[in-house]
Amino acid sequence: MKLLEPLDINGMVIANRTLVPAMVTRLSGEDGAVNQDVIDRYVRYAQGEIGLIVVEAMAIHSARSGPLLRIGEDRFNDGHRELVSRVHDVSDSKIVPQIIHFMKVARSGWRQTIDSLSIREIDDIIAQFGAAAARAREVGYDGVELHSAHAYTLSSFLSKLNPRRDEYDGRTLEGRLRMFGKVMASVRARVGDDFPVGVRFLSEECIKDGYTIAEAKLIALRMAQLGVDYISLSIGGKFEDAIYTEGEPLYPYTGYSGDRCMPGVWYPPLTNADNVAIVKKFINDHGYDVPVVSAGKISAPGEAEALLQSGKADIIGMARQHLTDPDWIKKVREGRADDIIKCIWCNVCKQLDEKFREVHCFLWPKHARQAPPDTADAGAPAWGEDAGGLVVALRDDGGAELKWSRCPAGTVAGYDIYRADGAGEVVLVDAVKGARFVDKTILGGLAYTYYVRAFDATGRASPPSNSVTVAPPVPGYGAARDRETTDA
Amino acid sequence: MKLLEPLDINGMVIANRTLVPAMVTRLSGEDGAVNQDVIDRYVRYAQGEIGLIVVEAMAIHSARSGPLLRIGEDRFNDGHRELVSRVHDVSDSKIVPQIIHFMKVARSGWRQTIDSLSIREIDDIIAQFGAAAARAREVGYDGVELHSAHAYTLSSFLSKLNPRRDEYDGRTLEGRLRMFGKVMASVRARVGDDFPVGVRFLSEECIKDGYTIAEAKLIALRMAQLGVDYISLSIGGKFEDAIYTEGEPLYPYTGYSGDRCMPGVWYPPLTNADNVAIVKKFINDHGYDVPVVSAGKISAPGEAEALLQSGKADIIGMARQHLTDPDWIKKVREGRADDIIKCIWCNVCKQLDEKFREVHCFLWPKHARQAPPDTADAGAPAWGEDAGGLVVALRDDGGAELKWSRCPAGTVAGYDIYRADGAGEVVLVDAVKGARFVDKTILGGLAYTYYVRAFDATGRASPPSNSVTVAPPVPGYGAARDRETTDA
Repeated sequence: MKLLEPLDINGMVIANRTLVPAMVTRLSGEDGAVNQDVIDRYVRYAQGEIGLIVVEAMAIHSARSGPLLRIGEDRFNDGHRELVSRVHDVSDSKIVPQIIHFMKVARSGWRQTIDSLSIREIDDIIAQFGAAAARAREVGYDGVELHSAHAYTLSSFLSKLNPRRDEYDGRTLEGRLRMFGKVMASVRARVGDDFPVGVRFLSEECIKDGYTIAEAKLIALRMAQLGVDYISLSIGGKFEDAIYTEGEPLYPYTGYSGDRCMPGVWYPPLTNADNVAIVKKFINDHGYDVPVVSAGKISAPGEAEALLQSGKADIIGMARQHLTDPDWIKKVREGRADDIIKCIWCNVCKQLDEKFREVHCFLWPKHARQAPPDTADAGAPAWGEDAGGLVVALRDDGGAELKWSRCPAGTVAGYDIYRADGAGEVVLVDAVKGARFVDKTILGGLAYTYYVRAFDATGRASPPSNSVTVAPPVPGYGAARDRETTDA
Repeated sequence: MKLLEPLDINGMVIANRTLVPAMVTRLSGEDGAVNQDVIDRYVRYAQGEIGLIVVEAMAIHSARSGPLLRIGEDRFNDGHRELVSRVHDVSDSKIVPQIIHFMKVARSGWRQTIDSLSIREIDDIIAQFGAAAARAREVGYDGVELHSAHAYTLSSFLSKLNPRRDEYDGRTLEGRLRMFGKVMASVRARVGDDFPVGVRFLSEECIKDGYTIAEAKLIALRMAQLGVDYISLSIGGKFEDAIYTEGEPLYPYTGYSGDRCMPGVWYPPLTNADNVAIVKKFINDHGYDVPVVSAGKISAPGEAEALLQSGKADIIGMARQHLTDPDWIKKVREGRADDIIKCIWCNVCKQLDEKFREVHCFLWPKHARQAPPDTADAGAPAWGEDAGGLVVALRDDGGAELKWSRCPAGTVAGYDIYRADGAGEVVLVDAVKGARFVDKTILGGLAYTYYVRAFDATGRASPPSNSVTVAPPVPGYGAARDRETTDA
């Protein structure tokens, strides 16, 4: 299984092909220092034996920005050293910080843009990236990742909307690439050639006049030319289409590009995988074998493995799925893939982040601040004599209402609702904590077979409940008009 | 060649697999009647032997809306009858009108939304669709296309943002489909089963919380269940992200979703083809063989043919490419594919439309109101002794500046600039009317070979000019910082 194969990234050997992309936690204090909650979050990932843990974006400059981590001064080093040490104590997981520079945003809706930067300020940012990377090496991180994605400074230089007209000229690709090139030179000068330096950037900006995959592959090639050690691709997440809320600073995941960045349940699985495959093929065709990370609604081990087998990716990035269940790869390795608690893309985590609150998973036990441990305190959930007693009723509004009996045995954390349509493919529709669900996305004229499985906090699932097949008809659209005609 | 194979669409036999999607022309007068300019535009397409010509969207209701065609009253019939007759006189091209209902928009930025509609108003719209379709049959159109795409009424019912909470409930797929179902029933009741009824809708809304391909395939299946005779897929083009200009009514192609609808040069070719293939496979897998139209940056005959051969589409829709050169399929059939004038996706046509001006193609001769005829008035363009005398200079900003000699022989309409990178694939970078071009999208570290071809108004091209290879280096990013350090 390729998922379980190690990979050498410039001397950093990851034990398997999984990665947690940087995800804001809002667990650190206002001071931006590593604290116990932050350590607990990343230790939990290490317990899950994830190949590479990328720590949430941390500021390289001296900006205060709520509970976001910082690495811009030496006084933060001890915290990072402790974090790295605790993670390394737990498993072979490697850990790198994502280092970021961002511009100012105000509650008035105003935001600073890169055309306001003087050359000296730019040179300072370049030096700060180098210094932060040096700090990352000093405190024991296994490498460092440069945040060149979403709405932040490096990404704004890469953007097709880059408004500068000097050597960083937004009108030419080379002008847009210059900032990243200088940052990379600065970082290498400080950490040397033997320290893994990865990058995250966008395969597509997903905003009006933004760049697309047609340029992303060229940007990736430049990064490869400059010796980055892995390329991790995200998408969207820009300020340009962010929705302003009175009195709140603009938040770059609130518009359409935010949807694309953290695609909800209404997006198909593997939403970004084809873009990633295009980038990987392009740099491979040009002689570079820099590992490429694919991310975006990846959840099923079979789908992840297929991406690796088909050469569409080298590493599988899972943010929300790992938040839901940090033990994903451990369970795969132990032959317990069936125990994986599957992310349902409900984006409660995204909403918490948008509201500047601690980021949790909806599927965690109530009030939990971390994913529960992978240790069972009782038998697995099991149905009673009615095998779940699932009943499904078709509603006038076109939905299907499911009700079932609560599981009498085991400690139930939630219920997964599965559905197969006529083609036989089974999909996880949703997960709920109660014993009722309404499916609003079915189409008359197809037959749907439903069943439900209860799962506990370790992901151990009950057998499938009884299954129920419903076949809503195609509505008769003539009826309403006929009635109206009769009335008239 | 599959492009040249006829196709029977419910009795309407199209001679080949090309289609002009409905494109606004702004040629009709304020009265919304067919006039000579409108006839000239569509006759020109018929001269090009396009399989199916879809006439620009025409209103089924009594709204005045600038120079847009109307079909909502019998008094417009004579004009349509004349249009159909003139088109049928010219070639075997089939012609159908796209019929549309749209809501009110105001210069204040206000727009009417579908939650404002009473049931009686909805019933009126349903009846108006039926009446307009009946009119289309009466005046001799070969079929009719229902406009259920972009920002207009039917699309707003299909939208995941449909705000209604009655039988047209936006919270369920069936609720969102009800309006289209009733319209289809109304249309069939008026035109019978033997009149081709096509539909255009979106494979993806491309707005925050909008629907994606995951639902588009279900929507298409419902349309197939209801007996539509072809399905033509567009994408984006919504009001929700439209950019408001003071004093102008909102225009739904001004935001990101507008970019997606009419993708510019910075989008890859065949931008929508994968979505279309997913829809086609899904309805085919469910037992329906309704022909599916793929559109979106299709230009090269080889790429179009490949879409058909691989089963990703049944018909090739080209809007901007057909505006540029209505003789596309005729030239393919006559073995003159090299004479096709290639759309360069400059979107001058889109900008004219946005400014409420007559829609022309940038590559047409100056002041032309239609594509020039496919008849040559002199010899084809040919270079002088210097074979074009192309020279390419690399610029400090990372661009490459091309200059060449104007073609001394033939009547030159423009110059195509071709570029091959190391992989050997030749791409058309742009076309210009002068003898200079700056390429701003090249990457240092790759080698590029350029050549130029002149073409006349019929598309006859000169031989390639002399070719020039440039190999811009990867910039040395250390230099600026070193200098800065020295200064300090």
